[in-house]
This record gives sequence, structure tokens and C-alpha cells, in this order.
Amino acid sequence: MSEERPSGDPIRVLVWGENRHEVLEPHVAELYPEGMHTTIAEGLRRVLGPSVEVRTATLDEPEHGLDEQALEWADVLTWWGHKAHREVQDEVVDRVQQQVLSGLGLLVLHSGHFSKIFRRLMGTTCSLSWRNDGRQERVWTVDPGHPIAEGVPNPIRIDKQEMYGEFFDIPAPDELVFISSFEGGEVFRSGCTFRRGNGRIFYFSPGDQEYPVYDHPDVQRVIANGVRWARDPRGERRLPGLRRVAERSVW
Amino acid sequence: MSEERPSGDPIRVLVWGENRHEVLEPHVAELYPEGMHTTIAEGLRRVLGPSVEVRTATLDEPEHGLDEQALEWADVLTWWGHKAHREVQDEVVDRVQQQVLSGLGLLVLHSGHFSKIFRRLMGTTCSLSWRNDGRQERVWTVDPGHPIAEGVPNPIRIDKQEMYGEFFDIPAPDELVFISSFEGGEVFRSGCTFRRGNGRIFYFSPGDQEYPVYDHPDVQRVIANGVRWARDPRGERRLPGLRRVAERSVW
Amino acid sequence: MSEERPSGDPIRVLVWGENRHEVLEPHVAELYPEGMHTTIAEGLRRVLGPSVEVRTATLDEPEHGLDEQALEWADVLTWWGHKAHREVQDEVVDRVQQQVLSGLGLLVLHSGHFSKIFRRLMGTTCSLSWRNDGRQERVWTVDPGHPIAEGVPNPIRIDKQEMYGEFFDIPAPDELVFISSFEGGEVFRSGCTFRRGNGRIFYFSPGDQEYPVYDHPDVQRVIANGVRWARDPRGERRLPGLRRVAERSVW
Amino acid sequence: MSEERPSGDPIRVLVWGENRHEVLEPHVAELYPEGMHTTIAEGLRRVLGPSVEVRTATLDEPEHGLDEQALEWADVLTWWGHKAHREVQDEVVDRVQQQVLSGLGLLVLHSGHFSKIFRRLMGTTCSLSWRNDGRQERVWTVDPGHPIAEGVPNPIRIDKQEMYGEFFDIPAPDELVFISSFEGGEVFRSGCTFRRGNGRIFYFSPGDQEYPVYDHPDVQRVIANGVRWARDPRGERRLPGLRRVAERSVW
Repeated sequence: MSEERPSGDPIRVLVWGENRHEVLEPHVAELYPEGMHTTIAEGLRRVLGPSVEVRTATLDEPEHGLDEQALEWADVLTWWGHKAHREVQDEVVDRVQQQVLSGLGLLVLHSGHFSKIFRRLMGTTCSLSWRNDGRQERVWTVDPGHPIAEGVPNPIRIDKQEMYGEFFDIPAPDELVFISSFEGGEVFRSGCTFRRGNGRIFYFSPGDQEYPVYDHPDVQRVIANGVRWARDPRGERRLPGLRRVAERSVW
Repeated sequence: MSEERPSGDPIRVLVWGENRHEVLEPHVAELYPEGMHTTIAEGLRRVLGPSVEVRTATLDEPEHGLDEQALEWADVLTWWGHKAHREVQDEVVDRVQQQVLSGLGLLVLHSGHFSKIFRRLMGTTCSLSWRNDGRQERVWTVDPGHPIAEGVPNPIRIDKQEMYGEFFDIPAPDELVFISSFEGGEVFRSGCTFRRGNGRIFYFSPGDQEYPVYDHPDVQRVIANGVRWARDPRGERRLPGLRRVAERSVW
Repeated sequence: MSEERPSGDPIRVLVWGENRHEVLEPHVAELYPEGMHTTIAEGLRRVLGPSVEVRTATLDEPEHGLDEQALEWADVLTWWGHKAHREVQDEVVDRVQQQVLSGLGLLVLHSGHFSKIFRRLMGTTCSLSWRNDGRQERVWTVDPGHPIAEGVPNPIRIDKQEMYGEFFDIPAPDELVFISSFEGGEVFRSGCTFRRGNGRIFYFSPGDQEYPVYDHPDVQRVIANGVRWARDPRGERRLPGLRRVAERSVW
Repeated sequence: MSEERPSGDPIRVLVWGENRHEVLEPHVAELYPEGMHTTIAEGLRRVLGPSVEVRTATLDEPEHGLDEQALEWADVLTWWGHKAHREVQDEVVDRVQQQVLSGLGLLVLHSGHFSKIFRRLMGTTCSLSWRNDGRQERVWTVDPGHPIAEGVPNPIRIDKQEMYGEFFDIPAPDELVFISSFEGGEVFRSGCTFRRGNGRIFYFSPGDQEYPVYDHPDVQRVIANGVRWARDPRGERRLPGLRRVAERSVW
């Protein structure tokens, strides 16, 4: 169990990035010269200022930068991966799952829908339809009272994006916050929340490596809102466990 | 309490139509010469054959054709209204609400979102965005295992329709079955289920008086599926009531 | 639309009480000499300190103390009523409903389940089973990560309470936070959240006029948590409305 | 993809039992001389008659009796396991998960909450509180309009049962049908539905090996209702998959 921290303390966010496209593909490196994780981290600092502390970690670090200590430090973990989902070690996935069920907040971004950790937490295939034609996506708010939609225009317009369409094979979300439309006529449940154990999970689909989506101020705002929402206010970590209740209490 | 009927008996559907546009506006009368209610009723008979018995009722009949006996007869009521929502008498709305809470299935179609009965059952404004430009709507299935989506192509294409867009001010539906996209880029939660009391409610948005939407075989199929889903299999009507439990039972 | 206020400002709570039992029945007056609303208000001040501003209002005030200005002032309204539900004027109920749908938080307490405003917002009968035998209620947390359950023992034990049992005729709650058990073996969904329009509603069943339930520190804690949860962080009031979207935007 | 079968055909149910307690422990063998799976199978035949075809399978059969052909045959699988969860081979769990996501219905019974397959599909620990003191359980219906509650008394009384209590670490169920109370005052969400992929899952907690719970006619009725509900009416099996949409369609 981690030490308890007052809920007024800065939110500690660990931004995890696969960091492969950015290294291997020049046109991605041009958009994200220090990696998408760096851009996401900067967006959080820009929107949340001193109320956030941000660190980053990437696949090629030892234990993918996700050792026990790093996860204990964080209140919220954000996850972007794509081409190297399979390289993520199963024991690290186990560890992240335990932490999420214990209260670590988790934001899963774009192609992270197919990550081991998201599929593990959802129990489904998390498959979807897609087409990468770099056309416009509009993100519509369908739950305007939700804290994740605070201060977000309706719709957000993202000029160039990959299309993600239904059927998206996820459990029915606990809350559906955003639905996207695409120029080809498709729709997608693009902002979904889930509670699992003591943890809160937010899936947000905008953000392909081929377009500067994480520079978009409204996308940054949604991610910042998501981080605030996903933080467990109790600031402690507890894995739900089997509990034998020894004695029957008397009424 | 109505007599009990075996669940293998034909489903009794009462198709209610406001029947004003069809009478007052020649271009609507051309599309629906015997009224939209007649077209909807015929669609049900076409898809469900002998497993359905259909009657119709309209606003200008005594008690709007919705007297106690008509409602007791029906397993499911479908509702289309638009320009004359206010003319529906409050006591008839009370009666329909009591019947729905007692187990009468209810399908609310298109502009019925603003009917007294739907607003009464939802508790919200049921407002939305709209634009009548007669362009294409696509209806996407987001819950392919749902019985209401059975046999329905993904997407359904409706060539000419009014646009209905978010924010649609309804309670979060119990199940979200369809999401529509529109040529202008909007999205809409177009197929939603709700349980209220012992009754099942399905809201389905396609269907404007200015376009022949109720002639569309896939729209007819969805409405037929909705009718089957909304029927209470127990075939009896019971309003949930306050129950004093006189004695504490001994463990 | 009310003026916008920073979310760091104190939460403004209007505690509404019917205040009839306390006046008419000596054994209730003994428990709640200044009315249940006063005890509830004091509990909020005790738990939330300077982060809350509390006012009270009662049935016998002009407009039941719920004029436009009082409702505009409040971030959250709490509602306790029982024997005089019918005396609440329909136009005040209309006004409260509009405010809730516009973003006013609402806590409905105990016998408030049968108030006009709760039934109006739910669309159902809100009926239940009951027996007043003054025995123990235990309130179990079934969503330990929910902010309304923060700092609450599992279970809360309330020595003497009226029994409220299922079937409770409400829409399926958006979130189920608490389930109660009773000495007679009954169960009840005792802590339920609902979103309606821009407003958040929390129903919490403990609290009968015949027992000092609102003096119970854990009950006070739940109500305080509920108030914090129900406050709209945006601090403005907007009723969702019909919006005509004049022009189709170009992709 | 399995052959399509008309929905009027008998439901094919595969009742899976661990069958260890019944073999190793005389007092269990006395209650269930042919194994719990046999009793469950007989209950289904008793309630559903010719509308069901039932087979059984157990842990010690090759591939636990759950080879591809057996799973393809079945419309619904019921699962009871307890002391040997770990002996279930991971590749069989993979196979069952694929089938459920493809449309195989699944009923998870009692201690099956801790089976690999249920934890896999839920993504959580599925832990709970428990005490085996053989006292009464009451199963209360909180969704009387649900087909799984059809014909079930409220409450069901089970004279001797193990206590299962909250917190039950599952995702919020799509539908909560039953809540149980126990003589020690605990509560438990004892009847929960979940949709995953194309499959429907029903968890039902009554049923310990030490008590003749599966001989109880109301328990048999719930399981039979669950089987009918969990059957995919489309009678085909399809795993949701990644779909590349090659061309952008023209509006």
C-alpha cells in the first residue's frame, strides 16, 4: 500500500509511450521529434500547470520504465502503443493490471485499444474498423455534464486523423462521453469510461502517429480532464481481495 | 390486471399516429396516403406475419383512440407525433404512463422524442439539435448482439432524412443499440432502450414525415425487432405499488 | 444563466425540509427540536467546514422557500419530505426540475423517494416496500472507488431505522453505490446516482423522522460526500434546449 | 462459424462441472451422487422439457470435455468450479473465451466467480467476502421485468447456503437482476448480466457443494431462465475482428 497523499497535492502522471514510430519513421519524427510521450506530457503541463507532476517512460527502458516504484509513484498512467504491443512483457502487464485494480488511474489513447493491458482489463477483443485516409474527425460530446467534457467545444474538429469505426468490441462503457464522426460517414464511441476494481479507466481514441493530434489544444484539454477524473481521490492503493468473514455478526 | 396470454400468442401492437401532416400537407399525403400509422402497421405485418396483430389509432379519435380497453388489448404501443404534441390530453398521457409502468411496451419514433409521454417517462427535456435538409443518414449498430439489431445491415442507409444531432437530452440509455451519422457530420444516439417500471421502451429516431422512411425495409425490420423486444413475456399488467410488509420474517 | 463561480469557492447548499412531523409530533420534535433540516445543515457544516455554505428552507415559507433566487444561489439542493408531498405546488416542482436539468445538484433523502420532484425526474412510481419496526439497517458499499463512498465504513450500522425494501421502482441507476440490509432480511438499493440533463441526482435512503439518523456521523459523511459529488464543477446553469443547426457544415 | 439453426430449435446446453468435491468428499457425494453437473442438467430438463438438449462435461475428461466441437455444438455453457480452478488449462480457457466473444452464452455459477474464464472475461479480481455457516440466503428480485426473473418468487429462500458478501470485485453489471441477503446481515449482487463481444454472460451466486441448492426448484428455474436469456438468437458464431475499411464511401 502506498503512502496516503492529500488530494490537494499535484496529480502525478506517468506518460507511457511505445516510442517506435517516432524513432523509425522520419515523417513521424518530424511531427514528434522528442516522441509522442513528450508532447502528451507537455500538453498536460500546459493545461494543468502546477497541479500536475509529469514523468515519461518508454518501451525500451528496463521493465519498459514500469517497475513497481514508478507505478506506485503515479496517480495516473497514460498509455500509447501501436506496432509493438506484443513486445510488452506479460509480467509488466500483470503488474499494471494489479495497480489499476488497486486504484491507479489509466488513460488508454488511440491505438492503445489493442494493447495487452486494455484487452486484459476489458476481457474482449477490443477490435474495431479503421481506414487511414487522414481526413477530418469530429468529436461530439454526448454527456455535457461529465467532468471530462468540461471546457471542450462541441464538436472538437481534428483536421487530419485516421478513421476508427464501429463495431468497437468493448464492454458497454460505464459512461459514454464522446462519439466521433468521420468524413467517410463512420461513427465511433471515442470517449468511454470504465471502473475496474478501485481503478478508473478512460479510453480516448483521437491521436495517430501520422498527424499532429497531440498538439491540438482541445485534445490536450480532454486528456488533462481525463487525468483529473481518473485520479483516485483517496490516494492509496488497495487490491480487492478474498476476505473470509470469520464470525456471523448478531443483528 | 389484464388476462394472462401465452407468450406464443401473436404480439398485439397498437400503432398510434398523430395523422396531421398527412392530412394537411399534400406532399406528405403523397408519401403516406393513408397516414404514416398505416405504413408502419403494414411494415409490421410484412416483417412479422402471423406472429403479430396490428391495430391503429390516431389523435382525432375519441380519447385519441387510447382508451383503457385499447391499451389493455395491446402488448406494445408505437408512438409517432410532431406538430400536435400539445393537443394530447394530459389524462391520456397519465393513462399511457401507468400502462407502460405496468408492462405495456412502448416504441417512440422520430419526433415522438418531444411527445408528452416520452418526456414524462424520461424526466428530461428530450431536446436535441436538428436541420431538415433531406440528406443521407446512416444508422450504425454498436451492440450487434442485441435482439433489436438482428438481421439489420451495418449501416442502414436512409437516402433522405432530417438530421437529428447531439446533445440529445435523455437519461443515459440502459442500452445503446444504434448511433447515426449525417452528411453534415453530426452524430445521434438513434436507437436507445430504457426500462421503466415493468415496461420496456425503445426510442428509434429515423422517420420524418417528409421522406418515405417508413417504407424502408431495414427501418421496418428495426421497428419489428423493437416490438418483439418490448413485449413483456409475462403477458400481464401490474403497476408497481407501495407495499407495507406487515411482519418481520424470522430468519 | 447564473453567474459563473470558480470551483474552489464554497459549495452552496440549500437544505429543504418539509418540517411537519417535527412540529406536529412531540416524539419527533424531541429528536429534531429545530427540525430535521437544521440537523442536516449542521452535519454538512461539521463535515465540510468552510468549504460549504448552507441555508435551509421549509414547506411553509412563501413558495416553500424555493423561489428562483434561492435556487439560483444554490449549487446543490437536498430534499426531505414525507406526509405533505401533495402540498408542494406544481409550479415549484416545475421550477426545481428546470433548475436540476440546468445543473443544480439534488440529493433526495429517505421518504423523499415519493416526492413530486423525484417522481417527476425519474418517470416511474418510485414505490417500494416498507415496515417501520425500528430495527437495524446496515449500509454496504458496492462501489468502493466512488467519491460518495469515501471515508465511509463498510457497513454503516444504523441501530434503529424504518425498513425500505425492494422492489424499488426507479430507473436502473447510473451508479449503484450502496445496498442496505435489514434485520427482517430485506435488501434495498439505498445509494443511487442519476444524471438528468446537466444535473446530478443522488438518492440516499437512510433517515426516518422517528429515529436520530441524521445525527449519525457516517450518514452525515455520506450526505456531505453526496453534496460534493452533485455540485456541477462548471458553476453555471444551462437548460438543454432544441437547437436548429441552420447550415450543414462542409467536411 | 457454426451452421445456423432456427431459433425455434431446442437450446443446446453444455453443463460443465469440476466434479472433484463430489468424488473426494463423502458428504458432498451424498448430496450429489452423480455430480453437481448431473443435478444441474436434470433441473434444466425438468424446467425446459423438449425445448432444451443438455450434455455434461467435466474437468477430468480430455481437454476437460471442452474441445472445439463440444463448444461449437453448444448454444450455452454453464460453469461450476471451485477447488481446481488452477487445473483448467490456459488453452481451454482461451478457447472458451473466444467462443463466448463469438456468441456462446455463459452461465457462471457460485464459486465459478473465481474461475479463470470468469476472471478473464471480467478483467478484475472477482474476489468477494465469504463465510460458510450454512444459514439462510434470500434472493431478492430488483428487476422484475427481466426475463431471468420470470416466474421466480420474491424472495427465493434457500435454507442453507454459504454466505457471499460485498465487495464483489466485478465490473458494474450491465443489468442487476438479483440481490441476496444473508442471516449475518450481508448483501451480495447475486444475479448479474454482462455482454462481452457477441456473448451474453449471467453470473448467479447460489449453489455451494455442501448444500442441496441445485435441487431447489426456484434455483433451477433461474438457471433455466438464464439459459434461455443467454442463447444468441442468431444461432451463429462470429468473433469480432479488426476490419480495414478500404474505401471511403461517398455520401
